[in-house]
Amino acid sequence: MYKENGVVHDDDDMHDIESEGFLHSKEGVQRHESVFSERNVTYSEPLLLKRRNTTSQAAIIGANLCPVESLDYEIFENEVFKQDWRSRKKVQIFQYLILKWGFALLIGLGTGIIGLFNSISVENIAGFKLLRTTSLISEHRYLEAFVVYAGINVVLAAAAGALCAFISPAAAGSGIPEVKAYLNGVDSHSILAPSTLFVKIIGSILGVSSGFVVGKEGPMVHTGACLASLLGQGGSRKYGLTWSWLRYFKNDRDRRDLITCGAAAGVAAAFRAPVGGVLFALEEAASWWRSALLWRTFFTTAVVAIFFRVAIQFCSTGKCGLFGEGGLILYDVNSFTGTYSASDLVATILLGIIGGLLGSLYNYLVDKVVRTYSIINEKGAVFKIMLVVAISLLTSCCYYFLPWISTCAPCPTDKTEICPSVNESGEYKRFQCKPGYYNDLASLFLNTNDDAIRNLYSSRLTKEFHISSLGIYFATIYFLGIVTYGIAIPSGLFIPVILAGAAYGRFIGTLFKPIATLDTGLFALLGSASLLGGTMRMTVSICVILLELTNDLLLLPLVMIVLLISKTVGDSFNKGVYDQILKIKGIPYLEAHAEPYMQNLVARDVVSGLLITFSGIEKVGNILHALENTGHNGFPVINEPPFTDTPELCGLVLRSHLLVLLKAKIFSKERVLVSHDTFQRISALDFGKPGLGKGVKLEDLDITEEEQDMYVDLHPISNASPYTVLETMSLAKAAVLFRTLGLRHMCLVPKSQLRPPVVGILTRHDFMPEHVLGLHSNMNPH
Amino acid sequence: MYKENGVVHDDDDMHDIESEGFLHSKEGVQRHESVFSERNVTYSEPLLLKRRNTTSQAAIIGANLCPVESLDYEIFENEVFKQDWRSRKKVQIFQYLILKWGFALLIGLGTGIIGLFNSISVENIAGFKLLRTTSLISEHRYLEAFVVYAGINVVLAAAAGALCAFISPAAAGSGIPEVKAYLNGVDSHSILAPSTLFVKIIGSILGVSSGFVVGKEGPMVHTGACLASLLGQGGSRKYGLTWSWLRYFKNDRDRRDLITCGAAAGVAAAFRAPVGGVLFALEEAASWWRSALLWRTFFTTAVVAIFFRVAIQFCSTGKCGLFGEGGLILYDVNSFTGTYSASDLVATILLGIIGGLLGSLYNYLVDKVVRTYSIINEKGAVFKIMLVVAISLLTSCCYYFLPWISTCAPCPTDKTEICPSVNESGEYKRFQCKPGYYNDLASLFLNTNDDAIRNLYSSRLTKEFHISSLGIYFATIYFLGIVTYGIAIPSGLFIPVILAGAAYGRFIGTLFKPIATLDTGLFALLGSASLLGGTMRMTVSICVILLELTNDLLLLPLVMIVLLISKTVGDSFNKGVYDQILKIKGIPYLEAHAEPYMQNLVARDVVSGLLITFSGIEKVGNILHALENTGHNGFPVINEPPFTDTPELCGLVLRSHLLVLLKAKIFSKERVLVSHDTFQRISALDFGKPGLGKGVKLEDLDITEEEQDMYVDLHPISNASPYTVLETMSLAKAAVLFRTLGLRHMCLVPKSQLRPPVVGILTRHDFMPEHVLGLHSNMNPH
Repeated sequence: MYKENGVVHDDDDMHDIESEGFLHSKEGVQRHESVFSERNVTYSEPLLLKRRNTTSQAAIIGANLCPVESLDYEIFENEVFKQDWRSRKKVQIFQYLILKWGFALLIGLGTGIIGLFNSISVENIAGFKLLRTTSLISEHRYLEAFVVYAGINVVLAAAAGALCAFISPAAAGSGIPEVKAYLNGVDSHSILAPSTLFVKIIGSILGVSSGFVVGKEGPMVHTGACLASLLGQGGSRKYGLTWSWLRYFKNDRDRRDLITCGAAAGVAAAFRAPVGGVLFALEEAASWWRSALLWRTFFTTAVVAIFFRVAIQFCSTGKCGLFGEGGLILYDVNSFTGTYSASDLVATILLGIIGGLLGSLYNYLVDKVVRTYSIINEKGAVFKIMLVVAISLLTSCCYYFLPWISTCAPCPTDKTEICPSVNESGEYKRFQCKPGYYNDLASLFLNTNDDAIRNLYSSRLTKEFHISSLGIYFATIYFLGIVTYGIAIPSGLFIPVILAGAAYGRFIGTLFKPIATLDTGLFALLGSASLLGGTMRMTVSICVILLELTNDLLLLPLVMIVLLISKTVGDSFNKGVYDQILKIKGIPYLEAHAEPYMQNLVARDVVSGLLITFSGIEKVGNILHALENTGHNGFPVINEPPFTDTPELCGLVLRSHLLVLLKAKIFSKERVLVSHDTFQRISALDFGKPGLGKGVKLEDLDITEEEQDMYVDLHPISNASPYTVLETMSLAKAAVLFRTLGLRHMCLVPKSQLRPPVVGILTRHDFMPEHVLGLHSNMNPH
Repeated sequence: MYKENGVVHDDDDMHDIESEGFLHSKEGVQRHESVFSERNVTYSEPLLLKRRNTTSQAAIIGANLCPVESLDYEIFENEVFKQDWRSRKKVQIFQYLILKWGFALLIGLGTGIIGLFNSISVENIAGFKLLRTTSLISEHRYLEAFVVYAGINVVLAAAAGALCAFISPAAAGSGIPEVKAYLNGVDSHSILAPSTLFVKIIGSILGVSSGFVVGKEGPMVHTGACLASLLGQGGSRKYGLTWSWLRYFKNDRDRRDLITCGAAAGVAAAFRAPVGGVLFALEEAASWWRSALLWRTFFTTAVVAIFFRVAIQFCSTGKCGLFGEGGLILYDVNSFTGTYSASDLVATILLGIIGGLLGSLYNYLVDKVVRTYSIINEKGAVFKIMLVVAISLLTSCCYYFLPWISTCAPCPTDKTEICPSVNESGEYKRFQCKPGYYNDLASLFLNTNDDAIRNLYSSRLTKEFHISSLGIYFATIYFLGIVTYGIAIPSGLFIPVILAGAAYGRFIGTLFKPIATLDTGLFALLGSASLLGGTMRMTVSICVILLELTNDLLLLPLVMIVLLISKTVGDSFNKGVYDQILKIKGIPYLEAHAEPYMQNLVARDVVSGLLITFSGIEKVGNILHALENTGHNGFPVINEPPFTDTPELCGLVLRSHLLVLLKAKIFSKERVLVSHDTFQRISALDFGKPGLGKGVKLEDLDITEEEQDMYVDLHPISNASPYTVLETMSLAKAAVLFRTLGLRHMCLVPKSQLRPPVVGILTRHDFMPEHVLGLHSNMNPH
């Protein structure tokens, strides 16, 4: 019957980690929406909890998370789903296929449209601001120009901050770590909600337009993932907008595939790099991969690429305002012949080393800054907005006043470009200079970030940036990039890193100019690559993205050398920036490999907390009691005499399925099998993955005293084939099994025959290094 | 003690499949090398066995295979390896890293050099042949020209055939299916041996030069894999060429990673497509993948690409004979503006459908032809060579006589190219025409395959191919491509498919010319894509390879549409050509997904044969008896009273490790634990994966009668954490576990506590559809 076996192992004071995670979010849901969101998604959360609960390091993990996604095959295994799957095989496979490819198309188109909308909006808003400022400067009304410039920036920034602070705190930051976590199996609260999507789109436009050193790349990936998730969730019962075809996507597997496509589409839209998008999804975003997904993500990214081609052809006629004149990074490498000398190689290696060093320093500083900001952010929405405004003012001051340091330079005599520039994306900003002269720092600062990158990469402007200007620009961007991440606006990390890298790349290029055969613009590109490698530690995807941006294979060898070196140097100091952010956010991310010390432990060494099992035909009251008093999401079901000779493991039942079953009230007075009856009263679809915040909750149940004494047959909803390991299985191998198959629960079966058929249950949290090392403090973590 | 439990299940007359496989190859090793090779690697084998053994369909599977590769993590798990791994972590990680990247570099360079050598040799041999023939034709000595042409072809073909027939039959064919099988965990006999590498390199040059409709792409992939395997195997004890560092690669995991890199390098060398190579390895070749491999394969393919760049720069000065003038496919798309009309789209869709139909027909016919040839090939080496000569003569006749059908056309007036051509790779072959005229069919037939592709793709030659010529050319190539695969020469499938596709693509392009805006050369490219998609069913890798060949992203949408359609159409008829060849060869390839009917079975339903278990401390005689009388490669080890309270599963011991242990003769008179002693007498390295054909064999043991009564402690060499499943686990989920983790053995543990601790053992063969459906004939396979 109902059992509470204190597990053989020591720590009886430890809580079950998974239960903690669940209870927290359950508690959260009961609160007012905005307060809940605020509490749950800022960086402060893990730090906050740390202070409250200092006894258990492990408790920090997962404290602010929704139930972990189930990626087991159980959907295929229960009788009820098997029927569904069979019918899907036979009759409705066509519907499923249409929907699968249709969704890929929609994700591609949607992400493309959002990406284009983002670019057009940013170019027009920022362009208006820059033109207004420039015209005031040209009239020598310097103070007024600054007020206009900083004023517009602050208003835009405050709007972005307010959206994030009040509507969707989950939309702040890059979003890539959260998408990565989702694809690893951790569904952070409201990270893929409609409100997050809305704030991410608008907030990103406002944030980038307001001149922050942030990019739209991370937000685009998050946007793509949100869009995919909403599509897969499908319609709304509330508004009667449901579609029976969508039931095929009511499982974690299909949802995950869609989100992978969405992430790839996001990169493709941000960089117009279809192959790069696929490789980004493969290398950085996804934790599980299969061949079929390759083709689907590629299809999605290709849709994005095609859409952009058409749109840009349309916009080049001037119908998109200021957008046609700039907006998308595309590096012009016509001048590159593909030959390079030994000194170029030396410079390349030097760039790689510098990239690795600066990149790991960047990660270190971002970590510190984010932890500091989280203390401010947790004080409330107003403090969040104040922080945003402060950083905006700082950025405006740097951007507006630093160009004054630079001396005016005479325009080049060969007039391939108009000098000084008259449009907003020009390469020769006049700023305070007299006619015929230009200010090189203003050309970088008083431009959009994309245009600044283009200027730094440009091979035409070989002599136009003074080396001191490049130094000042690099220091400013590097510093501002660090202090900007962590404030409550959607902020991508790609652009700050690319900008800072391009600045010091061009700096090195200018130094090496006398002996190098490479163009300084190419050095800027290599600098970007090196800093990207040093911070994000991606390799192939960065390589391919840069290949697609420059459309030239001949650069490949140099880019690869730079990335190889910068990644190696960076890895010797700390982890990649996204992994660091995952850690700060306290997300229980499962690494692909087991830690070395896990080889010296066995599976039962990490079991903690109570094991609660149900009998095959269980008393309703017992189930209710277990659901109320624990946060467990999975319960082993045991068949016992007289139904079998000895106690046997019958399966595993999920909390969400139990709730559906209890709600349907298929109870009987006697302890008898009623499986057959069950399926006539509940449909398979009721057990599908519910949409966000939907699904039966414990409070929805209304079970009388009398019903509590009745019995319910758990067999029909049990997953009859849970994955099991022997209790003496090496922890490392158990971890590999858990991670590779994407499990949520793993049952421990006893080695000796004198024990009960299940001796413990392992969840994601039991494999976290913090938990394992907390239980076994004598282990050497390295 | 020694046990032979007849397993609970029915079929007692079934042999253990895995044992059959092992016994066969053991038997084979004792024979004379060449006879063995001949017997084991032709396509005939499964068919032959089918006739001998008609009772068991399953016995066909794996009959001609070496022991299946073990991809379990066991290497990390035995105490003895754990020590090794730990020391590697601490002290020698640097050596390992250097070697890892050094090997990637060497594989890249080696494959690049072989690829270049191949291209240079083919261009020079074929070029000499073609120039000689052309000059004889221009002197109107037609018969003499044919004799020279066909004579050279036959001699080259016979040489290639003889190499394959006498030295290494494993080198015949494409090699991609075998590499794919290796990466799936099946090590076909001598497929990666040095002799295979040698024959593959030379045979491929001879075969391609002799004018067969074969390519070098498949052989290049196989070559890269061989090279990688030999590097990883490391040195030769026989010649004293060993290197202690190489011990890190004496395991299946590292070997497999190297071979994945090798396969990617092969594609990169064949097409000069570094990203395409990586995606090919990911999409088609590899069965297991991890993020780290992405970067390593990319590094390898980039080395190939860089090497080729340098080499071609060198060869363009004319130092490589006739090579500089042609040799590598690269399509020139300068003229493509990226705009296309509705009629272009119609043509594209039409091409996709045709490609799917023709592709599946191609696969069907290749299957029939290969099965027919295998009957001839199995008659002996001489028959093999005769078949090669016959096909060579057929090819020569087609190539030489068909151009006579074509009428001579006047040279174009705008002389961008010399017409008629004077060099061997020219676009306007004069053949029998009078001066100022050219023969369009001769321009296709009397050229190397690479040059023919270039001519078909060319946008300059818009009017030069008459539609009837294209029809004749297509029919000939399609037919010859089918009848050529399966003869005893190294023969890639890419080039025949690309050629035939280009021919009908240009055919359609010519038809659509009045209403299409696309160039006919582009239609040829799309035709190639469609037939590639229709036969090989790869998508992303073909897309990216074509992208890299043409260096133009604007084509992407059309190529994707074509591939999507042709793959979908093809899939509705049959499987991809490589999967078909795997099936013909009888290789037990594990699919990534479980078959639907497996959901209705549980793991114990497919157990067959005897289960042999050992006690933790076992009598030597019993072990010897088991090794002699079964072919099992893994034996569960059971601890029994008095050592434990109840019988317990202690671990799994491998045949190869048992042999090493028995050879070392660490026996004791009493039944006692001697684990400690074991490690002082054998080194961990002795248990590493031996090189090809090395390792201790049963015949090497020399155990006296007296020793047979002694005891040996199996604990030190047992894998203490074998993966286990409950006997009632769904077969589909067990299959997913087995495939995803790359296991070789999986122990079945009982559900009820009244049974022995292990009730069966599952191997790869137990998951084969033939085996499962053989046991459960009532199952519906669809």
